[in-house]
Amino acid sequence: MPQLRDDYNIFAGHDLQRTKALADGVFSIAMTILVLELSIPFFGSVHSEGDLFTVLLQVAPRLLVYFMSFITLGIFWTGHSLQYTFIEESDRHLNWISIFFLMFVALIPFTTAFLTEYITFKLAIGVYWLNILILGIFTYIHWQYACKSGFISREIPEKVDKSLRNRIITAQIFYALAALMCFISTYLSIVILIAIQLNYALAPSFRHISK
Amino acid sequence: MPQLRDDYNIFAGHDLQRTKALADGVFSIAMTILVLELSIPFFGSVHSEGDLFTVLLQVAPRLLVYFMSFITLGIFWTGHSLQYTFIEESDRHLNWISIFFLMFVALIPFTTAFLTEYITFKLAIGVYWLNILILGIFTYIHWQYACKSGFISREIPEKVDKSLRNRIITAQIFYALAALMCFISTYLSIVILIAIQLNYALAPSFRHISK
Amino acid sequence: MPQLRDDYNIFAGHDLQRTKALADGVFSIAMTILVLELSIPFFGSVHSEGDLFTVLLQVAPRLLVYFMSFITLGIFWTGHSLQYTFIEESDRHLNWISIFFLMFVALIPFTTAFLTEYITFKLAIGVYWLNILILGIFTYIHWQYACKSGFISREIPEKVDKSLRNRIITAQIFYALAALMCFISTYLSIVILIAIQLNYALAPSFRHISK
Amino acid sequence: MPQLRDDYNIFAGHDLQRTKALADGVFSIAMTILVLELSIPFFGSVHSEGDLFTVLLQVAPRLLVYFMSFITLGIFWTGHSLQYTFIEESDRHLNWISIFFLMFVALIPFTTAFLTEYITFKLAIGVYWLNILILGIFTYIHWQYACKSGFISREIPEKVDKSLRNRIITAQIFYALAALMCFISTYLSIVILIAIQLNYALAPSFRHISK
Repeated sequence: MPQLRDDYNIFAGHDLQRTKALADGVFSIAMTILVLELSIPFFGSVHSEGDLFTVLLQVAPRLLVYFMSFITLGIFWTGHSLQYTFIEESDRHLNWISIFFLMFVALIPFTTAFLTEYITFKLAIGVYWLNILILGIFTYIHWQYACKSGFISREIPEKVDKSLRNRIITAQIFYALAALMCFISTYLSIVILIAIQLNYALAPSFRHISK
Repeated sequence: MPQLRDDYNIFAGHDLQRTKALADGVFSIAMTILVLELSIPFFGSVHSEGDLFTVLLQVAPRLLVYFMSFITLGIFWTGHSLQYTFIEESDRHLNWISIFFLMFVALIPFTTAFLTEYITFKLAIGVYWLNILILGIFTYIHWQYACKSGFISREIPEKVDKSLRNRIITAQIFYALAALMCFISTYLSIVILIAIQLNYALAPSFRHISK
Repeated sequence: MPQLRDDYNIFAGHDLQRTKALADGVFSIAMTILVLELSIPFFGSVHSEGDLFTVLLQVAPRLLVYFMSFITLGIFWTGHSLQYTFIEESDRHLNWISIFFLMFVALIPFTTAFLTEYITFKLAIGVYWLNILILGIFTYIHWQYACKSGFISREIPEKVDKSLRNRIITAQIFYALAALMCFISTYLSIVILIAIQLNYALAPSFRHISK
Repeated sequence: MPQLRDDYNIFAGHDLQRTKALADGVFSIAMTILVLELSIPFFGSVHSEGDLFTVLLQVAPRLLVYFMSFITLGIFWTGHSLQYTFIEESDRHLNWISIFFLMFVALIPFTTAFLTEYITFKLAIGVYWLNILILGIFTYIHWQYACKSGFISREIPEKVDKSLRNRIITAQIFYALAALMCFISTYLSIVILIAIQLNYALAPSFRHISK
């Protein structure tokens, strides 16, 4: 019986293609349903273009949070997909680390909605930051487990491994600092979070890869 | 005419790649829209961080159900994707067994919402359990049909086949017992369901696969 | 300038893989958001298991429509994916026929919701049937255009081509008859529609393909 | 340290397959959730087929906007997928241009809902047009960057490159003109937008590609 279970474990979660497909699915849906939070309640009182402009202004802070969350998801998707550029094998456990990771990816639309609704509250920033922290932890564990289990392709230079880990930790430190800014102003937290994310997304030190 | 229909059957549902893609799609969407159930109604009365914390506490039991359903979907997705590691061919019928299976996968967000809303009612546990039972039955039928039709790759050791079937049946027995616990307390049912699922997900008897 | 446009047409819409992926995406989402229609309004008056059972009974006819629409989508997805088993090339026009087809696939959750809400009205059946009719027409045009353009793999026996066309036309005749039954009772229409669909899905004349 | 970051950049965003999958995911979800905007509020006053027909008539302008947005998404999806027919390599930056592009793809259901709700307001047309403009800009930047970075397959004839750029610019000029029509009537804008889109989708100058 324990033998059978072992056989099951050897095979379960081996199809990398499907793990990637599930991840792409969850990420793309989470990204797209963020937009549902922007929905404007029907205002019977919109009689002029000016009235409508006022409605639009009320949407503006929600748009800010929308962009932040979209980039957040973009960063973790890029990280996840980068890891799978190097991962050549998998097992039941890596599969489940990935599913637990996706559980918190799918939570981003909720913590985003919570932040959108209560944008002036420190607790809302705290909940959002906690979500990002957990995503960071799972990203790290995922890589760590894949390395320890020998699932990584051999050609990967050691520097890349270190770079990958450093990026996760550095980013999380910055995120924590940004979250702490909420004791000054929650809007400050959000602006700094976006700034950090843009820095990661736009990666200023990029040098053109000559072919 | 019956001859034509046969020709159709030979070809229909042969593209395994698309069956997998549809399944990954339905699973990832079902997983992600679970989060819509967490949405907090606007409380005009939130004036302090303390008020907001109270709101968050009200979300806590919903989060519990969210995690449970996400793992439920994770388990059945892993099972489905495991079966397709071995399935090398398909026909119209396997295709439709898969579609009927997905019909009940897509139902999970509904039975989850029903349970979230009426978490103290035995009937809500019963409906949720019924959904899991039907998923288990279709998972079994799917494998059974694929085996009988010779769609499984030959290299699969018999032990794996047995292991696969045993896992489905054992899990369903445990789920039924957990559901029965609702006669003591519905929360007890939920906690035990999660415990069973975590056991399946984390699979304690795992032994490292040395390369 | 017209020359340029031609060059564009030669290349545009050639990546079959992505057309399939988009279709699988739209189908799986349409299938899964059907469930949102089942959502139960919060009834403050649920005080006993009996009350909750009454709520559940109210959901029953909605479940019927849910199953019907899921199978509808399953049938058209199977048809679409079957066509692409034979289609080896594509162009801009086939791409757009596919997108227009998907436009009406994505409409199914709406016509389903309309039918669910107004299940006793002939007009609701009419709108639903119109949606199925348009899907049938696009399915036919899609195949017709692919054949005429020489995009079909040569190995396909002529019988399969005929079988494919006949199936679409026969199904549509049955659907129209079922829709007409609404003049007796809309529930009769729905039951007959489901019966027709189950017949197509379960394909009784199936003979086992011996390997 | 800057060296490490470079190594990271070399690898990050290289898996074209996943970029395409994420794009297909976001596009198909955005397309499908457009339909949620069509949802009809429950009218207690529907007592006859005639009443229901009135309800349906109220949905008609929403359907018009639905079709427009579906085709908009279809056009940009076709463009994105066309570019990736030629793109053979990628880097971190192309990956992020793609993600930012998707951010505005996912916004289409919002600007569509805004337009649906305030269909008689010029501002609503303006917001919608802005969304299309930004999509056009990112489409152009995406191609520009891929060309400059040498990520394009060598076999592409120069005419195709020019054709691709011209199409984007020409389309945007037409879109801007259509949007300007809102100063006469917002419905006129919408009708002209749809006409332009149908022209691009149906591409009248198509000449059959003889095999």
